[in-house]
Amino acid sequence: MKIITFGEIMLRLATHGFYRFTQATDYEATFGGCAANVAVSLANFNEDVSFVTKLPTHDIGQCAVNDLRKYGVDTTMIVRGGNRVGIYYLEKGASQRPSKVIYDRAGSSISEASPTDFDWKEIFLDADWFHFTGITPALNPQVAQITLEACKEAKKQGLQISCDLNFRKKLWTSEQANKTMSEIIPYVDVCIANEEDAEKVFNIHASKTNVLTGELNREGYIEVAKEISERFHCHTVAITLRKSISASDNKWSAMLYQGGQAYFSKEYAIHIVDRVGGGDSFGAGLIYGLRHFEKPQEIIEFAVAASCLKHSIEGDYNRVTVDEVLTLANGDGSGRVQR
Amino acid sequence: MKIITFGEIMLRLATHGFYRFTQATDYEATFGGCAANVAVSLANFNEDVSFVTKLPTHDIGQCAVNDLRKYGVDTTMIVRGGNRVGIYYLEKGASQRPSKVIYDRAGSSISEASPTDFDWKEIFLDADWFHFTGITPALNPQVAQITLEACKEAKKQGLQISCDLNFRKKLWTSEQANKTMSEIIPYVDVCIANEEDAEKVFNIHASKTNVLTGELNREGYIEVAKEISERFHCHTVAITLRKSISASDNKWSAMLYQGGQAYFSKEYAIHIVDRVGGGDSFGAGLIYGLRHFEKPQEIIEFAVAASCLKHSIEGDYNRVTVDEVLTLANGDGSGRVQR
Amino acid sequence: MKIITFGEIMLRLATHGFYRFTQATDYEATFGGCAANVAVSLANFNEDVSFVTKLPTHDIGQCAVNDLRKYGVDTTMIVRGGNRVGIYYLEKGASQRPSKVIYDRAGSSISEASPTDFDWKEIFLDADWFHFTGITPALNPQVAQITLEACKEAKKQGLQISCDLNFRKKLWTSEQANKTMSEIIPYVDVCIANEEDAEKVFNIHASKTNVLTGELNREGYIEVAKEISERFHCHTVAITLRKSISASDNKWSAMLYQGGQAYFSKEYAIHIVDRVGGGDSFGAGLIYGLRHFEKPQEIIEFAVAASCLKHSIEGDYNRVTVDEVLTLANGDGSGRVQR
Amino acid sequence: MKIITFGEIMLRLATHGFYRFTQATDYEATFGGCAANVAVSLANFNEDVSFVTKLPTHDIGQCAVNDLRKYGVDTTMIVRGGNRVGIYYLEKGASQRPSKVIYDRAGSSISEASPTDFDWKEIFLDADWFHFTGITPALNPQVAQITLEACKEAKKQGLQISCDLNFRKKLWTSEQANKTMSEIIPYVDVCIANEEDAEKVFNIHASKTNVLTGELNREGYIEVAKEISERFHCHTVAITLRKSISASDNKWSAMLYQGGQAYFSKEYAIHIVDRVGGGDSFGAGLIYGLRHFEKPQEIIEFAVAASCLKHSIEGDYNRVTVDEVLTLANGDGSGRVQR
Amino acid sequence: MKIITFGEIMLRLATHGFYRFTQATDYEATFGGCAANVAVSLANFNEDVSFVTKLPTHDIGQCAVNDLRKYGVDTTMIVRGGNRVGIYYLEKGASQRPSKVIYDRAGSSISEASPTDFDWKEIFLDADWFHFTGITPALNPQVAQITLEACKEAKKQGLQISCDLNFRKKLWTSEQANKTMSEIIPYVDVCIANEEDAEKVFNIHASKTNVLTGELNREGYIEVAKEISERFHCHTVAITLRKSISASDNKWSAMLYQGGQAYFSKEYAIHIVDRVGGGDSFGAGLIYGLRHFEKPQEIIEFAVAASCLKHSIEGDYNRVTVDEVLTLANGDGSGRVQR
Amino acid sequence: MKIITFGEIMLRLATHGFYRFTQATDYEATFGGCAANVAVSLANFNEDVSFVTKLPTHDIGQCAVNDLRKYGVDTTMIVRGGNRVGIYYLEKGASQRPSKVIYDRAGSSISEASPTDFDWKEIFLDADWFHFTGITPALNPQVAQITLEACKEAKKQGLQISCDLNFRKKLWTSEQANKTMSEIIPYVDVCIANEEDAEKVFNIHASKTNVLTGELNREGYIEVAKEISERFHCHTVAITLRKSISASDNKWSAMLYQGGQAYFSKEYAIHIVDRVGGGDSFGAGLIYGLRHFEKPQEIIEFAVAASCLKHSIEGDYNRVTVDEVLTLANGDGSGRVQR
Repeated sequence: MKIITFGEIMLRLATHGFYRFTQATDYEATFGGCAANVAVSLANFNEDVSFVTKLPTHDIGQCAVNDLRKYGVDTTMIVRGGNRVGIYYLEKGASQRPSKVIYDRAGSSISEASPTDFDWKEIFLDADWFHFTGITPALNPQVAQITLEACKEAKKQGLQISCDLNFRKKLWTSEQANKTMSEIIPYVDVCIANEEDAEKVFNIHASKTNVLTGELNREGYIEVAKEISERFHCHTVAITLRKSISASDNKWSAMLYQGGQAYFSKEYAIHIVDRVGGGDSFGAGLIYGLRHFEKPQEIIEFAVAASCLKHSIEGDYNRVTVDEVLTLANGDGSGRVQR
Repeated sequence: MKIITFGEIMLRLATHGFYRFTQATDYEATFGGCAANVAVSLANFNEDVSFVTKLPTHDIGQCAVNDLRKYGVDTTMIVRGGNRVGIYYLEKGASQRPSKVIYDRAGSSISEASPTDFDWKEIFLDADWFHFTGITPALNPQVAQITLEACKEAKKQGLQISCDLNFRKKLWTSEQANKTMSEIIPYVDVCIANEEDAEKVFNIHASKTNVLTGELNREGYIEVAKEISERFHCHTVAITLRKSISASDNKWSAMLYQGGQAYFSKEYAIHIVDRVGGGDSFGAGLIYGLRHFEKPQEIIEFAVAASCLKHSIEGDYNRVTVDEVLTLANGDGSGRVQR
Repeated sequence: MKIITFGEIMLRLATHGFYRFTQATDYEATFGGCAANVAVSLANFNEDVSFVTKLPTHDIGQCAVNDLRKYGVDTTMIVRGGNRVGIYYLEKGASQRPSKVIYDRAGSSISEASPTDFDWKEIFLDADWFHFTGITPALNPQVAQITLEACKEAKKQGLQISCDLNFRKKLWTSEQANKTMSEIIPYVDVCIANEEDAEKVFNIHASKTNVLTGELNREGYIEVAKEISERFHCHTVAITLRKSISASDNKWSAMLYQGGQAYFSKEYAIHIVDRVGGGDSFGAGLIYGLRHFEKPQEIIEFAVAASCLKHSIEGDYNRVTVDEVLTLANGDGSGRVQR
Repeated sequence: MKIITFGEIMLRLATHGFYRFTQATDYEATFGGCAANVAVSLANFNEDVSFVTKLPTHDIGQCAVNDLRKYGVDTTMIVRGGNRVGIYYLEKGASQRPSKVIYDRAGSSISEASPTDFDWKEIFLDADWFHFTGITPALNPQVAQITLEACKEAKKQGLQISCDLNFRKKLWTSEQANKTMSEIIPYVDVCIANEEDAEKVFNIHASKTNVLTGELNREGYIEVAKEISERFHCHTVAITLRKSISASDNKWSAMLYQGGQAYFSKEYAIHIVDRVGGGDSFGAGLIYGLRHFEKPQEIIEFAVAASCLKHSIEGDYNRVTVDEVLTLANGDGSGRVQR
Repeated sequence: MKIITFGEIMLRLATHGFYRFTQATDYEATFGGCAANVAVSLANFNEDVSFVTKLPTHDIGQCAVNDLRKYGVDTTMIVRGGNRVGIYYLEKGASQRPSKVIYDRAGSSISEASPTDFDWKEIFLDADWFHFTGITPALNPQVAQITLEACKEAKKQGLQISCDLNFRKKLWTSEQANKTMSEIIPYVDVCIANEEDAEKVFNIHASKTNVLTGELNREGYIEVAKEISERFHCHTVAITLRKSISASDNKWSAMLYQGGQAYFSKEYAIHIVDRVGGGDSFGAGLIYGLRHFEKPQEIIEFAVAASCLKHSIEGDYNRVTVDEVLTLANGDGSGRVQR
Repeated sequence: MKIITFGEIMLRLATHGFYRFTQATDYEATFGGCAANVAVSLANFNEDVSFVTKLPTHDIGQCAVNDLRKYGVDTTMIVRGGNRVGIYYLEKGASQRPSKVIYDRAGSSISEASPTDFDWKEIFLDADWFHFTGITPALNPQVAQITLEACKEAKKQGLQISCDLNFRKKLWTSEQANKTMSEIIPYVDVCIANEEDAEKVFNIHASKTNVLTGELNREGYIEVAKEISERFHCHTVAITLRKSISASDNKWSAMLYQGGQAYFSKEYAIHIVDRVGGGDSFGAGLIYGLRHFEKPQEIIEFAVAASCLKHSIEGDYNRVTVDEVLTLANGDGSGRVQR
């Protein structure tokens, strides 16, 4: 049975190495975007996954399709039309200097998609899982509408629905997010959030936590998960816990909340290669875990190990196999050469 | 006295070497655009030149400013604001395979500029020349309005006005171009056109000419220039003559029409490095020639030699000095090593 | 209905630009190989095509699979196993210096494949065309056996069978080739050869032709095609005609022989970007032409225009669309910028 | 009012990544040099800054000018002439392997400049600050003479004068430095030194400090600053404090001494991208701080935060804005992605 | 007097930066292999060293020869012939993601060498040291035979013989290794092993040690060295001690066992640039130390400092001078810029 | 018996592709220089060749040594000392735009060498050929003195002496060249010149020739060779004949004058990859020809074919084998792929 992910794929134009924008004479051109990242990661786990979006017919649109096909993602449900592929510019940070992202996504084909572009009934044939993130409805009220319709149809056909809140302040205000997501999340079975999302979207606070200083409070996160779970009837809530020591070093763990119980993962001290897409790789790991493992602890360890590895990989996509994730989740983080 | 050029500067994302778009993993990131190209070329001729446009305040906008400053173009008249820098994607052709350009310029800061952004009275202080191309009014009716106002003010302040017709079918129809340019060209003193522009914009045909086969007819071009000159009272008309043998080899010459006389330049057989910006380098050469030389033949030879050299240079900008142009115009095209 | 191609895909390690091997500190790593090249080219023409080979399970094998998927080639029939991906090293020539290829393909998974690896009955389901080249049976007597079995099954299921003779003296002698191909070609409907193959494989000479000096004789080639056609009952024979002026400049045309008639294409003067894969792009163009056009002249013009364009593209694969080929075949080789 | 910096700009030829010299087949070509670095950093803070040096008229000299103009530094006071641009070769260290610099600056245009090249009266028009470093007078006795004259004229016109001692043992001995600097520093208002300079130039020791082991002694540095301040009547003395753990990791802080009081900054643990130019970025931060902030603590925190960020940036120049420095100085060093 | 090293040199195809194999479009092409690495490292220490192997006559073989000659290794004893240069593909790890090596060395010229290829009597003229590693006999039983013969001849001529056990499970089983090495090691004077080799080859365990968790036990290693020393009459045994914290950070030290005494080196905390070849650089350092220093502690400190520096250098070879090693061994690991 | 070449080796800093200097952010770093180029070319022909120069002890000097060793040139006669490696900056031309070279060689170790640095008696042991070019004595009067001494010693020991006049107007005037070379050439057996050298150095004109227009006159060149041969008693004079059509296309041939007879080679139409070093590759080819072939026509065909191939190769050095040269000299310039 297939997994369907829906959302944006953008051209990612990143400066090389640690060059600032003003130093760049070349951009590394790859593709990324929340739902695309999840799709590719799942394809690398050998899941049967189809990515749904809208892309222009010109060569840049075709490049996005080719990039997804390369990793084995099904692209036959992608609608072709519209004018542009959204872009994001990336400058990687180091030490005390943060990474910087400039979005140029207005007017992209998916932002200007209309509800008639997608035939959800057909898209969900042979599918048992539907995933999207909060960025998708944030793109445009019309796209929010499409997302809501997709959820309704998915629910009707009995798919599991997962959503990563992924609040982006450049796309909408907390008020707008709250209004829209409050309609959508009731259809969602599995809700993913990071340390800020719940607060920004639903005004749910983790007590005694300061994101800037890296202080995170276990109890607070349990409350947040409980609140989301109860308010929207999500059977599973997962929260990623990032302690940002610097742009080069982070600590990374997560919590799974299921059946009224919280399960905390190991914490990894990560020396960062590329942090973008870290959240999406967690989402993909979680979906895989929920589909293949029984025990909550196993599920959350898989998701966190998967996303831990993502931080060591260039580009948005998580290019790791299930075996690689399991090796880490099972305790070998020594990084010894594999010959 | 300063030269003012007005128009667009775009981020040019070109694949490396002869890679097709679907092969690219990097884009060479430079800047270009008709009026920017003319400004940089004139700055390389040591002219005092100021480029007027609108650019966002973010880093990508700043990169465009920096790139112009690098070549000594005055950027203090650039308005900062709006959301994006227009983009064009370029794949260089070779042999029978043509170069391919994909524009992504909608929504750029300059396309969405408003008349109140520019104070032409102040911009034209200390200036004696104003240049723009047909692409600028084509961007948006509001920008066409701004261009017309600029022409009026320039005329009032006694500047020479030059315009390269530069018809682009992706930006407007012949009908739209005709309507708008018919209002603007009467203010223009120096009109530049290539082998297609006069036909597409003003429905003026060069008889017995076939652009695809590379047949060009001298008499026909004299008629075209005469017609433009008389219809719009331009004291100077220049027409570039490109014979496209393949994407790798072109023949290149031009004609100057002044005082009822036509002056044809030498023709160069060019082995092409980068053909984009060829027309703009001709415009810059022509402006320089008109400002510094007396004899029409000298003027047109300078303009053609300048643009001939551009075809051997990567990127939109013509990076050559007056001395280099004169060496070629005076007959040394042997390409022997300069030690 | 699907097209099946069968053969080798190798890692192509090419020095950058015009570097000789002793100058290389990096290799451009792409993939190529006769049957893979035909498959990708057909996929770029939007044909439904499946490539059959054997590749190791390790990451380098996976990279080959990913590269094919990227262009939309079906890879689900590829057998996984064995130890290595064959390699060829390439140094591009220029002017009087020829390109140089060093093969390192012994021991590759496909070379050591066994007949039980492939279930041709299943592979040919929903297929109506089978293509391979003379390199495939030359890899190894066992692979020759597999090829023969595939031909028999294809014939049984009523597929059209095409074969490019593609003689390689480093793989086998003329005697070995003759013996093996004489068994296989009787199953073939469409036989493709270049100016040397017929002589080296079947001892059929084109009279008055000297490959080194570039003299080619039309009458001689008609005789060759007639002889092949009659000896093996191929309904179609196509011969490519290359005049090698230098490593930088070639002339290129071809002849189609059908129903006792010879049809010669236009001849193109090509400024070469990358000549490797030129023959395979002709094969793909021919297959496309035979499937979609009626008139022999149209078919051969399509095949030659397709392969002409290949010479302007880096890498083994021909990355052009049907529209691009038709534009050239219909007469526009001017290489003017497509905006 | 303008800031004038005077000194050297060199071509910096750095191996890529962590390549040793013997591995390099390419050099990254940028520009740098003490006074140029300070000028660019100040331009990035939006200060009006003019850099004074001498550069040859050939293209490499022009490249240096262009590089400065790119960042908005005024280059109109640069004298053109002489034969060469000085060069330094750089190999970046990592872990226990130190970075290595090879200077090739003898015979550069600035080293061979003569006093008549510079008209300081005119240069200082509209300026209120003059900055140079100890490297400038060390280049050549004649350049030392020019520096002294510049100081006298600056003092006459009432500019603030700042100098970074910047002792370089390859350029002169401690004795020579002492003799020359003892004449110059009395004109200086703001004196900058690192942990070794005071000792090498003025034989002033920081007690109980061992540069190699990274032990630094607060009291010792206060004594040093007091001594400099009193001996030469500098109203401000700043000392940078580097603890070199390895080529990859440093700790970095500084002390400001003003009005008999010492102000120590926060200390940053830095994961190094490029350490060259770290001292110059401190100088620029200090000048900015002294011009814009009242409180000594604010000034030193700004200077240290600015130079902390420099260590995360490739190349000599500090490419950060005032906002970015303030964000760090105000406590956010978490390196979280800025979207 | 010369040092002879015998073994393999392979083409090392490494992805750039931290790219995974599936992301690579280029491979960095260098050469490496246990005995070649030791030879180059010794040549960089200014030792007179000759590397013995077999390489094909084609250009890729020549590239390997050129690469060795570049560093001053004598290549005149290299036998030319056979078909291929062995290859290894490398993907560098980071943080929790391990480096990955894929070997493609079957069928290489050295693997298929025959005893008659090498005239050891002549090779050992003017030589006083012979070095090889356990990888060499593991390549092929015939090569094991050649190695044994070389040892016998070396012993006869009175050379010192050193061997690094270097067990590789992909090349042979513990049983095979045990059988072969038990014949060879009795000829060896200096035996080098890492934390796993002794166990895998000779079933000698270091008690209370867990390689994965990084726990190493001093006493255990002394027992191992003692056992090797006594069983095979090696006068010197050296054991490297790696604590793998992650793919980015390792701790590194070693122990020398001589005359019944164990000497432990300092331990270095290394931030890794390239870990491959680390063991070989230790071997080269040890050989140099044994030839030039008296005291065991000096010898082991030199060997460990040399290999510590290797971890900061790209590529297999250790490109450091004796002076650089001594600076570190003598205590300066601060990584301060060397100007 | 060995060949000795004496002269300069410089760091060649070339922009990538067709970038102008002002576009470069990287330089391709290789080495070249007249006598070094001849040495490497001869080493590639498997001659035993030793290059004599002076180079600094620092890493950049070492890189030059390594680069020569890589190709098998003996470097043991190179004197180490002095301060710098000379540099030349190169920007490759195309079409009508000439290549541009900026020299920065003043103060290089070889320019400042003293006669006591070289012990010619020892250098010439086991040698039978001595080669240098006119650039060597032009570096500095002291180096001219060294060259003269070398010639005297070479003559005494009975070596053949060859010299390429290689006039460089940036190094000395015609008058200076005339004076110095008139003393040196009498020792020379084989004199090489291009179309300008004889005129610039010895005021010997080829009648009816215009270098700029590419007109070359056979009779004129015979006169020139005769004059040189008779005036200085050179038994062999060779003159290269370049017709520069553009920076991309040249025609290339040469003439050998021996025993009062002139032998003209074939003329090659060359599509240029890198023209620098073309003359040196001719010199090397000539030396090889004179040592290995009997017939003058064979000799000159070898030399011209060798240098023809050089134009297709990046960098100063000619990286071709004797077999490759012979294939071309014997008539195969078709550039067909060598598989």
